[in-house]
Amino acid sequence: MKELEERIQRDGIVREGEVLKVDSFLNHQCDVELFDHMGAEWARLFAGKRVDKILTIEASGIGIACVVARHFGNVPVVFAKKYQSINLDGDQYCTNIYSFTKQKTYSVIVAKRFLNAGEHVIIIDDFLAKGNALNGLIDICESAGAVVEGIGIAVEKGFQPGGKELRERGYDLQSLAIVKDMDPATGEIEFA
Amino acid sequence: MKELEERIQRDGIVREGEVLKVDSFLNHQCDVELFDHMGAEWARLFAGKRVDKILTIEASGIGIACVVARHFGNVPVVFAKKYQSINLDGDQYCTNIYSFTKQKTYSVIVAKRFLNAGEHVIIIDDFLAKGNALNGLIDICESAGAVVEGIGIAVEKGFQPGGKELRERGYDLQSLAIVKDMDPATGEIEFA
Repeated sequence: MKELEERIQRDGIVREGEVLKVDSFLNHQCDVELFDHMGAEWARLFAGKRVDKILTIEASGIGIACVVARHFGNVPVVFAKKYQSINLDGDQYCTNIYSFTKQKTYSVIVAKRFLNAGEHVIIIDDFLAKGNALNGLIDICESAGAVVEGIGIAVEKGFQPGGKELRERGYDLQSLAIVKDMDPATGEIEFA
Repeated sequence: MKELEERIQRDGIVREGEVLKVDSFLNHQCDVELFDHMGAEWARLFAGKRVDKILTIEASGIGIACVVARHFGNVPVVFAKKYQSINLDGDQYCTNIYSFTKQKTYSVIVAKRFLNAGEHVIIIDDFLAKGNALNGLIDICESAGAVVEGIGIAVEKGFQPGGKELRERGYDLQSLAIVKDMDPATGEIEFA
């Protein structure tokens, strides 16, 4: 998606350790008009698919998913929660995810009553690198008997293995910007 | 707001310990069409105000704020982050918030470059009880020299002191549903 690539070129910051900061428009400050355009693009890419629900994960995926849902007929958005709150029921799907960014494993839960067998789901998230968060969300869909119709990612780090693995497993993965290479010394970002 | 009150009556679950679960439409599964209607209502309530930015806090506030921003000319949404990620700069506003729900204190940060002196801000969140999260966000606005034009809350627990205190301090607090009383035995919910 040209608009997103141009925005990453303009405002993205490359850091050592394969870090790409896009927090000025994607995951700390949010450009909701850009999110809306991303929704239109995913609606085009996933056209013809049955979408009953959008699944995402807190925190950065939520804003994108909620704006994007308008392009899928205002279907409900469910976000996986990163820890057990005393306000949650015991009846939850749970999976463990290792975060390389935060260097720790955390549990993610979705209440069983919000994800049902036979529901067709699109998973939305801001980033895809090794794919750990996505694999956790796919696990939860499998536990529920829900069908993963597609996966929409804003920024895929194409030099990490997550995207390739998911495509080999047959998932319809639509990343709006795939970073092929990036250089912390020059700040240059190259897209696939 | 009639639509939100009716939805809480229909789908809200009252639990012991002054817990009101609205996770089927507000803060785990999200009804984005309802969020859009809430945005229209806040746009009406805050009409005539200058709004440069919407500030919220992860996780439950993000989806509401991002959908609502459309009604304020697609201004940027900034969400306060609940912990220090290695992807964040050192240059942040920080405040500590005690959560009664989770029974612990957590740090909340906003990157300084996303909140500037003289900016006019509306704060959006899903719940208001004792007001600890809101007071943290107000602290951050004060540190930045930003002007809090208004505070938009979906559900205020009117039997807890947060709302009263904020109104006494002069804030333009617009809660779309104010719960006056609720009974875990009968499940009844009464609005102010």
